[in-house]
Formats: sequence, structure tokens, C-alpha cells
Amino acid sequence: MSPVASNLQIDSARLWDTIHETAKFGATPKGGVRRLTLGPEDKQVRDWFRKSCEAAGLEVHVDTLGSMFALRKGRDMSKPPIGLGSHLDTQPTGGKFDGVLGTLAALEVVRTLNDAGIETEMPICIVNWTNEEGSRFAPAMMASAAYVGDFTTDDILSRRDAEGVTVGEALDSIGYRGEKPVGTQKFSNFVELHIEQGPILEAEGKTIGVVDSGQGVLWYDGKITGFESHAGSTPMPLRRDALATLSEIVLAMESIAKKRGPNAVGTIGEAVIAKPSRNVIPGEIAFTMDCRSSDAAIMAALDKDLRAAISEIAARRKVEVALDLVWHKPPTHFDAKLVDAVEHAAKALGYSHRRITSGAGHDACNLNTIMPTAMVFVPCKDGVSHNELEDATQADCTAGANVLMHTVLALAGVAS
Amino acid sequence: MSPVASNLQIDSARLWDTIHETAKFGATPKGGVRRLTLGPEDKQVRDWFRKSCEAAGLEVHVDTLGSMFALRKGRDMSKPPIGLGSHLDTQPTGGKFDGVLGTLAALEVVRTLNDAGIETEMPICIVNWTNEEGSRFAPAMMASAAYVGDFTTDDILSRRDAEGVTVGEALDSIGYRGEKPVGTQKFSNFVELHIEQGPILEAEGKTIGVVDSGQGVLWYDGKITGFESHAGSTPMPLRRDALATLSEIVLAMESIAKKRGPNAVGTIGEAVIAKPSRNVIPGEIAFTMDCRSSDAAIMAALDKDLRAAISEIAARRKVEVALDLVWHKPPTHFDAKLVDAVEHAAKALGYSHRRITSGAGHDACNLNTIMPTAMVFVPCKDGVSHNELEDATQADCTAGANVLMHTVLALAGVAS
Repeated sequence: MSPVASNLQIDSARLWDTIHETAKFGATPKGGVRRLTLGPEDKQVRDWFRKSCEAAGLEVHVDTLGSMFALRKGRDMSKPPIGLGSHLDTQPTGGKFDGVLGTLAALEVVRTLNDAGIETEMPICIVNWTNEEGSRFAPAMMASAAYVGDFTTDDILSRRDAEGVTVGEALDSIGYRGEKPVGTQKFSNFVELHIEQGPILEAEGKTIGVVDSGQGVLWYDGKITGFESHAGSTPMPLRRDALATLSEIVLAMESIAKKRGPNAVGTIGEAVIAKPSRNVIPGEIAFTMDCRSSDAAIMAALDKDLRAAISEIAARRKVEVALDLVWHKPPTHFDAKLVDAVEHAAKALGYSHRRITSGAGHDACNLNTIMPTAMVFVPCKDGVSHNELEDATQADCTAGANVLMHTVLALAGVAS
Repeated sequence: MSPVASNLQIDSARLWDTIHETAKFGATPKGGVRRLTLGPEDKQVRDWFRKSCEAAGLEVHVDTLGSMFALRKGRDMSKPPIGLGSHLDTQPTGGKFDGVLGTLAALEVVRTLNDAGIETEMPICIVNWTNEEGSRFAPAMMASAAYVGDFTTDDILSRRDAEGVTVGEALDSIGYRGEKPVGTQKFSNFVELHIEQGPILEAEGKTIGVVDSGQGVLWYDGKITGFESHAGSTPMPLRRDALATLSEIVLAMESIAKKRGPNAVGTIGEAVIAKPSRNVIPGEIAFTMDCRSSDAAIMAALDKDLRAAISEIAARRKVEVALDLVWHKPPTHFDAKLVDAVEHAAKALGYSHRRITSGAGHDACNLNTIMPTAMVFVPCKDGVSHNELEDATQADCTAGANVLMHTVLALAGVAS
């Protein structure tokens, strides 16, 4: 850490005010935020963000998928900037912090550097990535995925929401289809601050999560075909009950994930009985399954164990179970040097901290496939996110922003 | 059995043709029948039924809930008739036999007696009960429930279907709001022939089910309140998963019903996750549970065991489970003398038979609360009912009609 910056702290009250200022764009009666990507509330927060960045002396440009880049010049403009930021869109009934904290803490870092008159060696660039949430348009983390080349821009522009509106039309409707081709703005590294969206830091009383990995994801679509029959007249031994089959699968998955833990989770989040009726034994159920681990070998073991358990259950119950793998995302291993930089900043600032795996996906996981990337986590209340009850303390948000700032300063260097 | 009648057999081909003739009223492309109570197809079959009964010399009258009574005079008109029949309405995607067999076999019995020139001592009366199925108007077995005094006629007349049409309006719209107050037509006894709607007779290769009891029913509405959280970032030990809780409840219910078996069944037919999402741990699930036994002591034990199991599961998983008993129907024990009469007829006719419990509810279960009642079952293919695939053989339907006829003859007596 540069001596000139070692005591530098962001303005906690200003960060907190800014977070609550943007929470009015799409505020819900229950204290949450509904700011679907590329909708009118997203336009409001984007206009506010552009104005605020320009007021802080940043040069704002927008790419053809609407991602916003706000550049602060460095002494040495021959190098690509250090990227920092997150996203400003929310879930349909989201909270004030998911994405917002990382984007506005980046703005606060710049404001703090401005106030202190600090010039960095390398430029820095705040990003607001379009459609991280994926609630209106699929996939989630859409713009960063296109940025790293997982999708073409044209493919993404043609994706439609539930009303049939394309991404391209939505961008035009709010005036955020930018000029710059996706990928034009290069970065040296990228650092994203985010709330944990899980309960670990809070449970362990730690302020900073030094994120060293992101979980890989296995998404399955499943279908159980048993036999629909009368609840009263079908004896227990003659049943081929799809719900009892699902129940065994849920508990087998839970037990397998626990056995492969702590670095493994498994969830059945959707289960729909085909023709539900109080007095009919369920004959058909469609379900989804989500399994994650930051260890590729554990992911392979989860898949193998699950398939074996499901085969045994299906054969014993004389039902058919189809299980299709619909998405396989390998684990993310963040850049060791950047992870060390985050850890060093947390330590130097005196914050309690621990290494942690990100359970959720983030734009940073995409970016890590083409550039050194790291993330900083702060606790959120009860681990709740994607919910109007999402909450985080001012002290933790401040700590996260300080770690972000000192990580960026360590990477960008302070011009002497 | 009266010697004069001992060799009498119904006309198998005529019964079979009649069943298939009525199956055209509401025929579905897949070979089933859609004949919702008091709809246009129900009017068609009712008009056909009235005409056919009148052609067989019966006097038809209709009560104020639309139930149709077709009286064949006996030698001794001082006694109330022996009732026989069932219902002609079907499920939305029902089959050709449920209810139809019992009603048309009753008509076939009368036709056979006519052809043989047999006069019974006591009169006999065929009934087509309105709305046995309960698919359009609740409750099921509506007219027989009103007949035995469980509901007032006015209450039933004001019940509405999903479109807001009342029973009274529906009766008027097809011209079947009759003159006779409900309950006017008295009976000495009642015998109902029906397909089993379960797999037992078929599995055991028996032709006739001598129904000695009907299961009592416990209907519960349940709600599990766990905690909705992120599928990726919530470690397995910190979850309060509503679906994993439901899974344990399903398997506990299954195991309890098996333990209390063979005379007990338990089914969870409906289970709805509140805000299902592939990557969210289910936080809330509403479900229904249906438990049955023909033994009141076993019903009480099921209730007790289930509540104990659910309490233990809920406490261990730190979730809340509410379980409300919404319906408690005690078991039916059919009249011993009538059950013996059915068994005697089956035996005398040389049909393989066994005593059986009705898993489903029937108008006969209501009638049994105020008069001696019995039922005759015949096998149905794979135990399937309430389904367009519902099927039964001509031989089994014929056997059932013969048992019905000889039971009725034994009860009514043959005039000498």
C-alpha cells in the first residue's frame, strides 16, 4: 500500500446517502427496490449515475448493450484501466444493496480520491453492467458474458422479455443503446464489491469476505412419470406416486450435498405436479435441480452420486425419472495476486476477514475468464438477498468500500 | 333366492350396447366422456334415460335437486321400493363406466324382469343422483347428501360453479328442477353397482367385490413456512428448506399409512411452492393431505401419528408447519344383512368374489346413514378411473348386473 494513501478512508455518510438516494428509483412500499433492467426506473438510475460520474470528472461512454463505463484518467494512459463496479438493475422484488453497493462504492472511491487530490498511475474505470439479474431477459450476467465473448452482441440484442420486447428495443426505448462495440473498453484487472448474499460472514462475525472462488453450477431439468390414481382406492403397495419419488430425490440430494460438503450445495427450487388434485395420487411432476461447488471434482461426484441415487429410487418405485443437464458452468478461481491484494487491504485496514467462495454468480465470474479479477464481500442481514428485506450495515458497507479503494490503489499505483 | 328367478340372467349384449349408446353424450376424442352435471350433455343423457325408463314401463319423477326416480310397481305397494342406481354425470375427462354402469345395469335389471314377466313383491326404483362427481359444483355426492339431510335443499340450490352459475339456475337451464321435494321418495334399502376404481379385484383375479365398508376420510390443508434463500450462497446446514420439509412429511405419511395398513392410505395430492425459482430455496409450500381408513380407530391413530411426525420434523428443521383438518368423514359400514345378500348372490351365480372396502366415496355411503345399503364392485382395468382410459370388460359388467339383479330380487321378493 502506498504510504500516501494508507490512512485514506472513504466518506461513510456520503456512501450511505448515495445508496439511499438511488433506492428511490423503483422504491417499493416494503422498503425494497423494483428496477428491472432497461425499464423506466433503470433509465432514471442510469441518468443519475451518468450525471454523478460526470460531476466527479469522469468520462462516461456506453457500449452497444448499454453497459456504462466511467473513466478516471491516470498518469500513465498507455495502460488499460483498473475496472471496478457492479450493476444497478434489481430483481422484481429486490433490495437496496445487491449490485448497487459495488457500483456506488466505486463512485465513492473516485470521489474520495478526488477530494484527497490523488492521481493514480493507471487509469480507473467504473462499470455498470447491463442486466446482471436476468429477471427480465435471460441469461443473467448478460452484458459481461457478451463482453468476454460467450455470446455475440446480435444474439443478446435479439433476446426477448415475457412481453416480447427485445433487448435492442428496450435499449432504444430508454436511450441506452451506446456507440461503443462491446469489448472496446479494455481493463488491466477488475474488482467487484458485493454483499455476500449468504449467511457465512454474519454467522462468523467477519466484516470482509476475501472471495477466492465462485461456485460452478449444474442445472438440471427433471421429470418424474409415475401413475395417477385414486387416493382412496389405491392401496399403498400398488402406488407409483410421483411426489413420494420426488421426496426421496430431494432428501437424497440433500444428503449427497452434505456428504460432499462443506463445499457443495444442492437445491430443488421448482416442482410442479401435472394435474394436482386433493384426492389423486400425483402421476407426473416436473422439477429443477441446482447443484454447486467451487471444486470441479466435487461437481463431477455430485452428478455421479445423484444419478446413481435417482436410478435406484426410480427402479424401486417403478417410476420413470428423466434428468437433463441444461447448464454446466465450471467453478471460478479468482486471480491469486488480486485475491492477495484484497486480503492485504482488509488486513492493513484492520478488518476481520476470511477467504470465502461466492455461492451466487457475478459479472466478476465472467470477467475472470479473460482478465485477473477479484471480489470483496460484506455481510448482509440473515444472508437475505433478492428480497425487499435485504439489508446491510453502514459500517460493513463502509469497510467494503475502503477495502475496494485500497485494493484499487494497490493495483493502479499512486502517482508520485 | 326365489326358485323362479335362480337361472335368470341379464342380457349382456343389451347392457353393453346401452353403456356405449350413452357414452356418445359428451364423448371425447380419446374415448372418454365429459358430461359435467347439469350441462347440455347431462340433459341429453337425462332425456335419453327418462325415455328409456318410460319405455320400460317405469314412472319417472324428478326431485327439486334434479335427481331422477324411475319406479317399477310391485305387488305390495304398501312398502317403500328397493332403490338401485348410481349417477350419469362424469368427471371433466372421465370414462364410460363410473356411475353409468350402476345406473344402466339397474335399467337392464328392469328390462330383464319385464322380459321374463317377473313381478316383485316390493316395488323397485332406479335412481340417477344429481352431481355425484362434484367437479362442477361442490360438494361431491351433493344430491344424496341433501337426501339424507346433511344439507338443506336451499343451501345446495345456491351453490355456484366456477362461472358463478348456481345449481338452481343450472337445473332450470336444462329443465330438470323437478316438483318433488328432496326426500319424498322413500326406500326400504338401496343397492349400488359400481366399478371398483382401484386395482385390488383385478390384481387378485376376482370378479365381484362385496363391499362391506367405505373408508372414512381425513382431509387436511397444510402450510410449511421455512425461509427463502439463495440456492448458491446458503450452506446446507443453515437452510430452512420448505420442500425438504415437505419431502420428509410425504415419506413419513407413506410410512405411517403402510404401518397402519392394509386398511389405511395416505396421499399428498397437491403441493405448491409459493415463489418457485430454479435458484431459490423454497421458503413456503401449501399442500393438501388425504388419509383414509374404514376403521375409525385407525383413522384416529393416523391423525395422531401424523401430527407427532410433523412436529418432530418441523422442530428439527426449524420451520413452521400448520396442519388444519378441513373435513372428517367417519367410515361407512354397510348393512350386514344387505352385504350378506350381495355375497350370497355372487356365490349362487358362481362368480369369484371377495369382501372389499370402497376407497372412493359414493352416494351409497350417504344413503347408508339412513337406510340399509350395500354396494357391488366389478374390476376396472389397471384400477384406473376419473380418466378417459377407464375401462371394464363386458363379462365383468354383466356379472355385476346379475349380482345386482339377484340381490334386488332377494330383497324385493318375487310375487308368487
